[in-house]
Amino acid sequence: MTDRTYRVTEIVGTSPEGVEPAIRNGIRRAAQTLRHLDWFEVGEVRGRIVDGEVAHFQVTLRIGFRLEDT
Amino acid sequence: MTDRTYRVTEIVGTSPEGVEPAIRNGIRRAAQTLRHLDWFEVGEVRGRIVDGEVAHFQVTLRIGFRLEDT
Amino acid sequence: MTDRTYRVTEIVGTSPEGVEPAIRNGIRRAAQTLRHLDWFEVGEVRGRIVDGEVAHFQVTLRIGFRLEDT
Amino acid sequence: MTDRTYRVTEIVGTSPEGVEPAIRNGIRRAAQTLRHLDWFEVGEVRGRIVDGEVAHFQVTLRIGFRLEDT
Amino acid sequence: MTDRTYRVTEIVGTSPEGVEPAIRNGIRRAAQTLRHLDWFEVGEVRGRIVDGEVAHFQVTLRIGFRLEDT
Amino acid sequence: MTDRTYRVTEIVGTSPEGVEPAIRNGIRRAAQTLRHLDWFEVGEVRGRIVDGEVAHFQVTLRIGFRLEDT
Amino acid sequence: MTDRTYRVTEIVGTSPEGVEPAIRNGIRRAAQTLRHLDWFEVGEVRGRIVDGEVAHFQVTLRIGFRLEDT
Amino acid sequence: MTDRTYRVTEIVGTSPEGVEPAIRNGIRRAAQTLRHLDWFEVGEVRGRIVDGEVAHFQVTLRIGFRLEDT
Amino acid sequence: MTDRTYRVTEIVGTSPEGVEPAIRNGIRRAAQTLRHLDWFEVGEVRGRIVDGEVAHFQVTLRIGFRLEDT
Amino acid sequence: MTDRTYRVTEIVGTSPEGVEPAIRNGIRRAAQTLRHLDWFEVGEVRGRIVDGEVAHFQVTLRIGFRLEDT
Amino acid sequence: MTDRTYRVTEIVGTSPEGVEPAIRNGIRRAAQTLRHLDWFEVGEVRGRIVDGEVAHFQVTLRIGFRLEDT
Amino acid sequence: MTDRTYRVTEIVGTSPEGVEPAIRNGIRRAAQTLRHLDWFEVGEVRGRIVDGEVAHFQVTLRIGFRLEDT
Repeated sequence: MTDRTYRVTEIVGTSPEGVEPAIRNGIRRAAQTLRHLDWFEVGEVRGRIVDGEVAHFQVTLRIGFRLEDT
Repeated sequence: MTDRTYRVTEIVGTSPEGVEPAIRNGIRRAAQTLRHLDWFEVGEVRGRIVDGEVAHFQVTLRIGFRLEDT
Repeated sequence: MTDRTYRVTEIVGTSPEGVEPAIRNGIRRAAQTLRHLDWFEVGEVRGRIVDGEVAHFQVTLRIGFRLEDT
Repeated sequence: MTDRTYRVTEIVGTSPEGVEPAIRNGIRRAAQTLRHLDWFEVGEVRGRIVDGEVAHFQVTLRIGFRLEDT
Repeated sequence: MTDRTYRVTEIVGTSPEGVEPAIRNGIRRAAQTLRHLDWFEVGEVRGRIVDGEVAHFQVTLRIGFRLEDT
Repeated sequence: MTDRTYRVTEIVGTSPEGVEPAIRNGIRRAAQTLRHLDWFEVGEVRGRIVDGEVAHFQVTLRIGFRLEDT
Repeated sequence: MTDRTYRVTEIVGTSPEGVEPAIRNGIRRAAQTLRHLDWFEVGEVRGRIVDGEVAHFQVTLRIGFRLEDT
Repeated sequence: MTDRTYRVTEIVGTSPEGVEPAIRNGIRRAAQTLRHLDWFEVGEVRGRIVDGEVAHFQVTLRIGFRLEDT
Repeated sequence: MTDRTYRVTEIVGTSPEGVEPAIRNGIRRAAQTLRHLDWFEVGEVRGRIVDGEVAHFQVTLRIGFRLEDT
Repeated sequence: MTDRTYRVTEIVGTSPEGVEPAIRNGIRRAAQTLRHLDWFEVGEVRGRIVDGEVAHFQVTLRIGFRLEDT
Repeated sequence: MTDRTYRVTEIVGTSPEGVEPAIRNGIRRAAQTLRHLDWFEVGEVRGRIVDGEVAHFQVTLRIGFRLEDT
Repeated sequence: MTDRTYRVTEIVGTSPEGVEPAIRNGIRRAAQTLRHLDWFEVGEVRGRIVDGEVAHFQVTLRIGFRLEDT
């Protein structure tokens, strides 16, 4: 087996519902254009406030995926 | 339009239920005394343990709000 | 009353369901072998991705507990 | 002379022109409502992009000011 | 009991005598204008040097206090 | 409206003239190949020195842009 | 001589008197159950405030000790 | 000469042999699909343990490369 | 399958020969008293200098291992 | 060619005019007593406020220079 | 008045008695060979343990001093 | 015995061969002009890439040495 290499891409997932829906939204969107997604790490958690309530959550994700052999 | 200035205040929201309720509690309380709340950033997430179970979550929030023109 | 001393141990709790279940799982497991658990702090939040969806969440926790007098 | 105490407040100054105008705008606005401003520290420098150009700069400042004796 | 909310304010206490007097000075000054002070965290410890000796210590403190219900 | 997802790319803009021209150069270059640029954050600011003078500034930028729906 | 290995444990020492008594209390308590203590590093310094005065200091210590050969 | 712009990509190189082979593997793989690689910075160094021995090293690299003029 | 929990312990491995031997020494020593070692992360890399040459390397490792079900 | 070694020195450049003049002032002063200055990195950016306006900027610089062969 | 430049040097002061004596020892020693010492910042606080008691404190200090005009 | 004071200097060692040769090169060069070198800490590890291969490693070292009594 050859030595695998991974790439890490950074995504911001968003959701009005909460932190986990924002994570899941971001990963699903990344999976539409990237293959072999392997792990994620949560970075910054932020959000927008409208009329004194959370309007949506913004979660920065670092997503690792395996590069295919060339 | 003049150049806007924002202030950032730091709040610790708490809840026995979870991280998001603690965030929403903290922002609602801040909205009672501050106007023009615009965004938040989650800092430290901590909690108190009683009898081997989470008793409540404590979420530090930096909350940004627009200062009115003087 | 004597001056209390605490120890901090580091645990990674996991759950397929979300961040809070992972926190609660980790603390319950720690409570099986440690007494006087007092507080926790959330460190890194990561997770494993399988077939483009989150397979499980991994939450690093620093858990503080009071040492008994000797 | 008594021992002085300072408070640190956090401000985000903005400007379409650059980092220094954003700093100066933030400090001038703070000076309208706070007295005895003494020093500042630059934190995060961010900005908004519109049509592929910087629309405005946002500079987070920690501003220290001396508290008056009570 | 409702869910409590705390605010965190940042103070720089000073003293020619040492780090702990600077901490105590800063907290006493904060207690003159804020109620329900609950905890503090020490940030930066700096100082001024005059004629090759420490002239005074400057200790940055984050002080947490409970907000009253509105 | 669906939940938006953003990607963050990292760029180093350079300029012999200063920090802001380096920021603007980097963003313009990124705008040639990426659409929907939305915000930037300044990271490291470095530079090269030649003959005791700044030869050029190098500013690391994290640039966020909205991903189109697929 | 074989290559030594050390373990690092994390302790929170407390004292109503100050930072150094809190450090010394934490190390003495650790020395009751661990052998070959070798060095310490001070992490977070926090404290509890009661009636506007410091009630006790809490100092997080990382303590290194040599593991015995097995 | 125009002002150059660089992009930074993040790679995880792996090797059962050590940190440097993992660095070299990651850079060689990146060089298969990216041109004008210019510098790298080592981030996190981790690894997998199997049967009490290091099975492979995982080295996170930030790799900078020059963007071509468009 | 139940949700696994891991514990993270901190070790300093040493070697006169280099960084990797220090990592391998630390992990082998940990494997003598802990089971189910799963991963490691390299923290601080330091060393002692004697007569202008490196006498030994000291590598701080965070080692994760799976806790058995109770 | 032998393997080059560099030293990094830390300077605080100041200017009433802005961040870049403070950088250029600091580097010019360093160049009066050090040879082979090669690069700089900007650290903290602070400043002094007098009468509600920036009196001068203080920019901490790490400056790298090549050591001559001995 | 010309624009002042400062240099920052890093010192580790030690004392068997405590953190402040270690700070004062380090600054006094620095003052024997450097002129115009102006400020200090406390970095890492560590110490050596012998027979289960603190043998001496080691405090890393960054000390700023004004460079004379050339 | 008087209380010892140490100074910390920052060096970048380089080598085309790897991280440890870069460390050893940097320390040997420092030992040519400084006496009583005592310990080192590895900071940033970077390198230059030429033709898709590592051309040389650059390792930032903080080196501590004991100051002689004056």
